[in-house]
Order: sequence, then structure tokens, then C-alpha cells
Amino acid sequence: MKKPKVIKTPPNKEELANRLEKVRALMGKEQLDYFVCFDPVNIYYLTNFAFYVHERPFILIICNKGSLKMVVPLLEVAHIRDRVVPELELIEYNEFPAPEGKNWYDKYQKIFNTNAIIGIEPSMPMEIFQKTPGKKVVSEIIEEVRLIKSDYEIGRLVYASKIVSRGHQKLLKLCKPDVAEFALYQEATSAMTSKIIMDIPNANFKAIETTAAVWPPSISHEPHLVPNIFAKMEEGGPHVSIVQARVDGYGAEVERTFFLNSVPDKARKPFEIIMNARNLAYELLKPGIIMSEIDKKVKNFLNKNGYSDYILHRTGHGFGVTSHEAPYIAEGYDRVLEPNMVVSIEPGIYIPGIGGFRHSDTVLITKDGYIKLTIAPEALEELTLKRN
Amino acid sequence: MKKPKVIKTPPNKEELANRLEKVRALMGKEQLDYFVCFDPVNIYYLTNFAFYVHERPFILIICNKGSLKMVVPLLEVAHIRDRVVPELELIEYNEFPAPEGKNWYDKYQKIFNTNAIIGIEPSMPMEIFQKTPGKKVVSEIIEEVRLIKSDYEIGRLVYASKIVSRGHQKLLKLCKPDVAEFALYQEATSAMTSKIIMDIPNANFKAIETTAAVWPPSISHEPHLVPNIFAKMEEGGPHVSIVQARVDGYGAEVERTFFLNSVPDKARKPFEIIMNARNLAYELLKPGIIMSEIDKKVKNFLNKNGYSDYILHRTGHGFGVTSHEAPYIAEGYDRVLEPNMVVSIEPGIYIPGIGGFRHSDTVLITKDGYIKLTIAPEALEELTLKRN
Repeated sequence: MKKPKVIKTPPNKEELANRLEKVRALMGKEQLDYFVCFDPVNIYYLTNFAFYVHERPFILIICNKGSLKMVVPLLEVAHIRDRVVPELELIEYNEFPAPEGKNWYDKYQKIFNTNAIIGIEPSMPMEIFQKTPGKKVVSEIIEEVRLIKSDYEIGRLVYASKIVSRGHQKLLKLCKPDVAEFALYQEATSAMTSKIIMDIPNANFKAIETTAAVWPPSISHEPHLVPNIFAKMEEGGPHVSIVQARVDGYGAEVERTFFLNSVPDKARKPFEIIMNARNLAYELLKPGIIMSEIDKKVKNFLNKNGYSDYILHRTGHGFGVTSHEAPYIAEGYDRVLEPNMVVSIEPGIYIPGIGGFRHSDTVLITKDGYIKLTIAPEALEELTLKRN
Repeated sequence: MKKPKVIKTPPNKEELANRLEKVRALMGKEQLDYFVCFDPVNIYYLTNFAFYVHERPFILIICNKGSLKMVVPLLEVAHIRDRVVPELELIEYNEFPAPEGKNWYDKYQKIFNTNAIIGIEPSMPMEIFQKTPGKKVVSEIIEEVRLIKSDYEIGRLVYASKIVSRGHQKLLKLCKPDVAEFALYQEATSAMTSKIIMDIPNANFKAIETTAAVWPPSISHEPHLVPNIFAKMEEGGPHVSIVQARVDGYGAEVERTFFLNSVPDKARKPFEIIMNARNLAYELLKPGIIMSEIDKKVKNFLNKNGYSDYILHRTGHGFGVTSHEAPYIAEGYDRVLEPNMVVSIEPGIYIPGIGGFRHSDTVLITKDGYIKLTIAPEALEELTLKRN
């Protein structure tokens, strides 16, 4: 199967109606009269409206039929109308806080029928929960629908992958001994942002985030330590690159282990082992497999080779309207892999005194296997950058 | 009183011990055995550790004595150790998700004594609430402690205000007819970020955010509409600028209504009225006043002058470890203004066909009044920029 085509346009009404229909089908199964969304990511998924949460709440209410309703601050009405795709009834409140009887929840609570059964998100904050009437049931139905991507979403993710691949290419090109972290960050993120806004002049800045960094060898064994902005690239390696982005609402990442000029002898074996762990993960990557099985087999392979003390994380995670979400390729996540899921494959080992070893790609699951959506060098030779 | 001195160093152990002591005093009053923090902003306030929330939880547990505990992903231990200031017992879990019996909550639930009374934040998500044992009481005690700033915090906010004033100066300098939004954004945010990292080489990138934008006259009557990045500045006005930042963990903002080359006649009256509304707010700004009273009086003044249809928001909000938080200068927020609060003063009117009118500053409340921490032109003459 060929890589699907890039899509750069906002979702149309039909795309969002299909998402809503799937949510409503699950609401029916769970016998919910309403579902309440507070998570801005879920609201974006269903409406195309992106925002940051401050103290003024935005709450999307999905009734089991009819149009969507959203409780919104008066201040934001024009902003919402500018971006929202589906029919949406706005229920405006003046401000937060407000005098008694004029608060957002005074209007919110009137929306629901008495004795309604209301689905709520696992992430719903207590203060919204306490103001929500009826019988409340915590349910992950929107996260469930988000697991399987539509053709439209796949087109957006192909584009997001193209952007991060481009940012990563820039990063590798500039990387040489003594270059500072901050220079790499600035050049690679600017390259991505400029490309996005040239391609999509009406891109939504509230749905764009770009990150690009390299963990030089002295810290690459600590994958979540934030590098100092004046940290310098070094001779040798392993360096580990991370380029991640949310590209006008859709996420992707690409990461590589690489070397500058030479490969230290002690790094050869772990590089080879992690490449084999990665190959094993890809061999297993077919619809029908339980995702935890992939993680278990990858870890068993690393354990057998003596690296059990150097494993810090699972094999992968999902992408969609974020660059980090379910499904998880992880022990304990006993769900079947399905076509049109999009996941990272990124087993890693982190050895103090030697460094970190991890490649990550954004990968589409197809009917008979997978397609890598991100592009970056893979072989040790290509990843030993000559910079003299 | 003179403006307090800039502080650019991280908080020391004593500063954070004082914050914790205040939290514990309130825990005592509410008879809480524990308080659980999940909000990254509260965790930053108490530990100096900044992070983004993904699906792997970080949970800070404050016992009524002894050292703090934090449930953390194994992957993040080095990152936490790099930034945390107080004594902190780490309770590590391997990964999320995880096989049965090895999840974060298996360790989390063992922390608490049977029958413990546990304070939780209003923002606590349902999925953390459901895993928290004992008798749970929603309580805003950390938000309460955050309202009044220590001398250290004030020094940091003075610095944050200096940074946004600098970014704003840059923005005004570059602003002329036909300049695009994106150019202004890029230059002003780069100016701020560069200054921060030159001043604070070890600044925490997870606690830095910079925003700079101008609403040109065609959209300045819609204060929360996000301007298109190719939008162009125009002859005349009102343009409305926004420069806001979280500067290595501490927030500030400055905003102005300004004109390019000439002031349309129809804009003169609303400019004068909003300046008078603002003067009224400053006259009222003394410790002891109920904050809602300021907002009511400002709105009454605007109503009396015939602008009641053009008010979209309250008079102000607080600053601290964010650039947008309690206290609120708003109807319905019936709390007394106190020294060492830091708030914005920003009454606004938004008139379709004419434009938006709002100045905002970051303001420290003192024993006998206030000190503006941000600096920008204020008079109409200075804000009519000659750009021929």
C-alpha cells in the first residue's frame, strides 16, 4: 500500500458529523442521555475549535440527538464562530466569576432533563463535576472513537509527519560539535512553523506546537531531562534527536540516535541491539496482535541481551489530534491493534556512561501491516554525520 | 514606595518551606491529614518543578508533617532531581499503562493512612479522584496561599514585568501600516526569549511562554478572536496590543490601545472614556476595598456614559506563577484587596465599526496603594505613532 495523500484543509461538516455519529453510537450502547466534554482536545476533535483552558469554562454538551450545545464565555463568541465547523448552539455567560444567579453553571444546569444519565470524561475536573446535575458516568467514549483514524485524519497525519521529517532533516543538517542546543531548536522549529504557515495561511495558532532538540551524549541516557539551552553538541555520540509537532491540530514525531564524526566502540553493541528490538516491533506490527504483546516481546528481547536495567519506557504511543495519546504499545494495554491506528515505534535503552539509544517514527497501521509516515536516516552509517 | 528590585534566581529552600508552611496552616484549619496536588501549576509553586501533563501522572502529596512525597514516572526522576528545591520523597512507578498491580495507583493508594481526610484541588480530574482513597474534601487552599505574594515572588514578577515591557516596546517600534502580524509576533517574542536566556542561562523552558500580538482596527472590537498571522497593520486605529509572558515561572502582561499616524474622530471619545474608567479603577485600588466594588464602579461609569452594550469582560485578574489566575477584579468576587497581591487593571470597551479600547498593566498592591510594574506609553499623543 502506498503512503496516503497529504491533506491540509480544515475538516468539513461531513467529517465532523461522522465523528459525532460514532460518539452517539457509543452513547447509545452505554445508555447515556448526554455526554459532557471539558477536555479541549476532545472539543477540538468534535468542533475544530481550539482554545486554552483558563478559569472561564468552555463546556460542550452532546445530547443524544439534535445539534451540539456549548456553554461559552461571551468574550469568546466571535472566536468560536470563526473556527467551529458543525452546527453549534452557543449558551453564553457573561464572565467568571459572576454575581449569584449569573454564573456559567446557572445556565449549564438548565440544559439537562431531570434524571438524565450524563457521560463525563475521565479528565473532568472536580469543580465541573460538582456543578453537573443528574447521574454521572465516567466514560472514555471519545478517546475510544479517536483511536481509529478516518481517511481525512490520516491525510492530516501524513502532512504532520512530512513537517516533522522536514524539521528533523534541518536539525541533522545543522548538527555539529560545539553547536548549541538553542541554535538547533530555533532553526528547526522556525523551519517547521514557516512551512506550516506558507502551506496553510489560515492555520490555527492555538493548534500549533513545534519542538526540536538534541540530547547530547553526556545526557542522552536521561530521555526526559530537559537539555540546557546552552548545552553543546559533542564529537561522537550517541546523540538523540527529538522532533515533535502538533501541525494545525494533528500530531507527529520523529527521533533518531546519531553520531558526529565517529562511533565510540562501546556504543556499537547497544545501537545494534536497539535496531534489532525495533525490527522485532515492526515485524509484529500487524492488525490483530494485542498491543501489550509487542511491548512484552520487545522487552524480553532486550532482557535476554542483558539490557533489562536500561529500559525506562514502553514501545510506543498513539497520535491524532495530539502528538501523544492512546493507544499505547505497553504492557498492561491489552487491546488489539487495528488498521487506521497511528502509533510511534520507539523502544529505547539508556545506559549511564554510554548514552541513550532510541529511534521513533510515526507509523500508520494498514490492513496487512504498516506504513512509516516519517522519513529519516536509519542505518548506523547514514547516522554517523561527517562534520569536519 | 519604590518599585521592588528584580529577582532572577530560583527560589531557595526557605522560600518554598514558607509556602508549604502556609499551606499546612490552612490544612490544620480544615483538619486535613493530607493534601493532594495534581495541577502542574500548584506543583511548580511548591517544588519549582515544571512539567506538562500527559497520561503519566505526577502527584504531589503533602502530609501534615514530614517531607513532601511525589508519585512520578521512573522516566522523569532525573528531570525532577534537576529542578526540585525542597526535600521530596519520590515514589516511582514504571510506566502507564502497566500490568495489574504495577500501576501508579497501586503505590499511590498505600501512602495514606486508613480513614485519612484528604484535601484535593478543584481541578483534580475524575480519574485521579477515583483512585484517591479516604474521605476527600475539595479545597482551594493552595490557590488561597498563592493570592498573596512573598518578597521573592514580587521580585520575580518585577522581572517578568520588565521582560513584557521590553517586548511591548519592540512591538510598538516595529508597528507600521502593512506590517504583518507574524513579523511582529516573531520579533517581539524573540526579543523576550533572548533576553530571558541571556539573563537566566539555566531558565526552565517548561516555564517559559511568550505571546505578542496586535489586533488591527478591523478586529480590535473582538478581543479574543485570534488574528490571522498574515493580517496587516492599518492606518489609524484603534489597534490593541497584547504582550504576555510566563518568564521562567512568573507571569506578567502589558496591553495598549494605539493608533498609526492618525486618530479617527469616532475613536477619540471611547479612548477618553476608557482612560477615565481606568483612572477610576486606579483611584479605587487600595487595600481594604472589596474587589467586586472596583468592577461595579468601573462598569457603572461606562454604563452612565452609554457604553453598557460594549463591555465584554471584568476589570482585572491576578498574576503569580501564571499570567492569569485569582484574584479577580470582578462582580461576584467579593474579597478584600490586600497588599502584595498582583493584578491587572484592564477595563475595556469593544464597539463594532469603531474598534476595541483597553490598556492593561501588571500592578502590585502596596500598603497604601499600588505600583505599576509594567511600563508603556499611556497618553493618546504618545500612542499615536508617527510612521511616515
